[in-house]
Amino acid sequence: MESFQSYINLNRERFIAELQDFCRQPSIAAQNVGMREMAKKVMERLERLGASARLIEVQNGAPVVYGEIGSGARTLMIYNHYDVQPPEPLDEWTSPPWDAAIRGGKLFARGVADNKANLLCRIQAMEAYRVAIGELPVKIKFVLEGEEEIGSIHLPQFVAENRALLADADGCLWEAGYKDINDRPVLACGLKGIVYVELHARGAQRDLHSSQAAIVENPAWRLTWALATLKNADDHITIDDYQLHVRAPTQAEMDALKTIPYDEAKIKQNLGIKSFIGKRNGIDLLKKFLYEPTCTICGLYSGYIGEGSKTVMPNHAFAKIDFRLVPNLAPDLVLDLLKKHLARRGFDDIEVVLTETGEETARSPLDSAIVRAAIDAARAVYRKEPVVYPTMAGSGPMYPLCQALGIPAVSAGVGWHDSRAHAPDESVRIADYFEGMEFVKELMERFAKN
Amino acid sequence: MESFQSYINLNRERFIAELQDFCRQPSIAAQNVGMREMAKKVMERLERLGASARLIEVQNGAPVVYGEIGSGARTLMIYNHYDVQPPEPLDEWTSPPWDAAIRGGKLFARGVADNKANLLCRIQAMEAYRVAIGELPVKIKFVLEGEEEIGSIHLPQFVAENRALLADADGCLWEAGYKDINDRPVLACGLKGIVYVELHARGAQRDLHSSQAAIVENPAWRLTWALATLKNADDHITIDDYQLHVRAPTQAEMDALKTIPYDEAKIKQNLGIKSFIGKRNGIDLLKKFLYEPTCTICGLYSGYIGEGSKTVMPNHAFAKIDFRLVPNLAPDLVLDLLKKHLARRGFDDIEVVLTETGEETARSPLDSAIVRAAIDAARAVYRKEPVVYPTMAGSGPMYPLCQALGIPAVSAGVGWHDSRAHAPDESVRIADYFEGMEFVKELMERFAKN
Repeated sequence: MESFQSYINLNRERFIAELQDFCRQPSIAAQNVGMREMAKKVMERLERLGASARLIEVQNGAPVVYGEIGSGARTLMIYNHYDVQPPEPLDEWTSPPWDAAIRGGKLFARGVADNKANLLCRIQAMEAYRVAIGELPVKIKFVLEGEEEIGSIHLPQFVAENRALLADADGCLWEAGYKDINDRPVLACGLKGIVYVELHARGAQRDLHSSQAAIVENPAWRLTWALATLKNADDHITIDDYQLHVRAPTQAEMDALKTIPYDEAKIKQNLGIKSFIGKRNGIDLLKKFLYEPTCTICGLYSGYIGEGSKTVMPNHAFAKIDFRLVPNLAPDLVLDLLKKHLARRGFDDIEVVLTETGEETARSPLDSAIVRAAIDAARAVYRKEPVVYPTMAGSGPMYPLCQALGIPAVSAGVGWHDSRAHAPDESVRIADYFEGMEFVKELMERFAKN
Repeated sequence: MESFQSYINLNRERFIAELQDFCRQPSIAAQNVGMREMAKKVMERLERLGASARLIEVQNGAPVVYGEIGSGARTLMIYNHYDVQPPEPLDEWTSPPWDAAIRGGKLFARGVADNKANLLCRIQAMEAYRVAIGELPVKIKFVLEGEEEIGSIHLPQFVAENRALLADADGCLWEAGYKDINDRPVLACGLKGIVYVELHARGAQRDLHSSQAAIVENPAWRLTWALATLKNADDHITIDDYQLHVRAPTQAEMDALKTIPYDEAKIKQNLGIKSFIGKRNGIDLLKKFLYEPTCTICGLYSGYIGEGSKTVMPNHAFAKIDFRLVPNLAPDLVLDLLKKHLARRGFDDIEVVLTETGEETARSPLDSAIVRAAIDAARAVYRKEPVVYPTMAGSGPMYPLCQALGIPAVSAGVGWHDSRAHAPDESVRIADYFEGMEFVKELMERFAKN
């Protein structure tokens, strides 16, 4: 233990420099920027660790960086992603998103929390283990993909083509985790599903002077009216038959909520909001957060959005919407219900474009070996009782990569409660980053034994 | 007459070059770009005409270019504006908006139809008149403002401060007009009022990962729900008490519609639409076009609108909305009704920002001297029966500058039915431009006599 820590301390500056180097390479899957450069950088880092590493291509997709190292009876899959969200809006960043600037003990960069720090922390922890202690106690299989932020659109194909490589894993350490607002480590054993669509309304063949709006249909209005039928002001999704497919949480799932601390006052203060939706609190709030589906306008555009006034009638309007899913709401079903709902109301002129293939909901058993190992490791390293979420509110490809192959997964990582994934000023705290290396060591050792 | 035409023919290339020069100077009031440069250019052109010209300043506003020339018993006010709409979206222009490119007998530029060609055509016609015929038969007072596209926000103040200069005008030639789809000249004797507002909804103090949308209010949804209460899918404005204030058209106003040809099939084809709103046609269509108020989303924005998918929950959403008004719907009243309507529905968190002070509705008597002169002049020049609109569907400061001072006004100009004011590929046809000079000559002569 001491030599493991000593090695990390001795290499602290290099480790941070490597993280900055990762963060300074843009790798925006949605815009196809820097993907191959980043994949190569990750593969080379695995090679420097001593792993056998290669890029596994999937047709039309960003390559998966696959690597193996270590030995032992048990096989641990490590899932991370090297792609990041787009950095916009740029003017809301305190320092530029690709600068990887360090301020007040934090490193700020697009993608540092989601997911480059987690990815690199695990590799560096294994380097320290190998030098300071010896061969890794489990067989490691790295699956480091490049399309998580665009819905892992080719990952099911990758799994289908490489099933033999993956299926013998006994557990998976999923991509990320964080400390909550009271600095308790958060582990998660499932993810919501997701479908991301664009709705496009179109009008005349060009923008018109707005005086024409008296007699020519305005697509911005049609989009508004269509959207207003999808969810009501109580935040209740009103798509026809939608609620029929929402599986209510089981008693065990409801009981699990009772162990989750959620400091509502601190969180509201941090977000700058007076109350949560519908003034919910307690178990009711957590139930909505974790077990209910969402329908979220992520983007909205039509016409003139510059300074001042322009009296134009737009000929195009669109919304970007993500649906977070719970068990029984499969992506295809949601898409089908949405299209039928719109058509039934005369909105069949509104085009529904699926921008990602969608992801199924996944939940791992809370008593599986990998979950128990993670809980024990977190207790040992962080000296606080970990918070175990039966599912996160977010999404990811846990279903095709793990659940469909019978591999339980647990998510843990080096974020903090204000890491701002997907938003400006994304960050990780340097201290959490190095503490995370200990967690990786403890997890490997415990998972090897139990 | 012959020498008037000869002079124009001889100076044709210079006249076009002057128009290109005007169009190449951006003068975007909404963005405060190039306003003073353009005002100076216009004033210098009036001076070259031989007019006494000066810039009249209004506090915090773009100056009015004021000029006088000619003599005679009657005084004709000439109203134009030297500002233009913003040119966006730039990528929908065939040639750049400030290039003033000529293709197929048309000049393409932002602001050429609205309103620079009309402004310059009148000056050049007077130059030709003075050289070829002699002193102008009426006393001309040019009022050339720089804020029409932002609602002429300082023009009422200008009128208040310069009332003595203006009030003795006997009639006004308003800024613009066009030939309809069958090339009949269109004259207009009134304008709708207007109010332009922005609605802003705000959420958490920064953008959030969209998984948070399960429990944190999304301003894009609040804006959508609020907007959907303003107008229903029948295009009926549903703001509380709004319809109570809409003055129904009089019998005379309804009768006037019968003389207006409106080639619905050609117009629909040109706009690329299958039908007008609610499948209206005939008198019913014209009634809605000219005599009913509008509520138009001109712009809509929230969150991520770039390529691909970004799972973000925005913390800000806004809409730009223009309301075109009819008699009895005063701008202040509309603003008041809107705010009360939103507050009554719990949308008082949505900020209503007035981006312009608004304009009152104006209508001039159809039997006034200036209207009769314009009709006669149009018949003589265009050899087609002019179409006389009791009001346009558009707006402008006709109320404070003319109606409030008891000055009848008629609008006529050199646009064509596809001039695309406020939109990409705005244009005038060169032939219309030169024909318009004849119209100015005939109008002056007729107005001097009748």
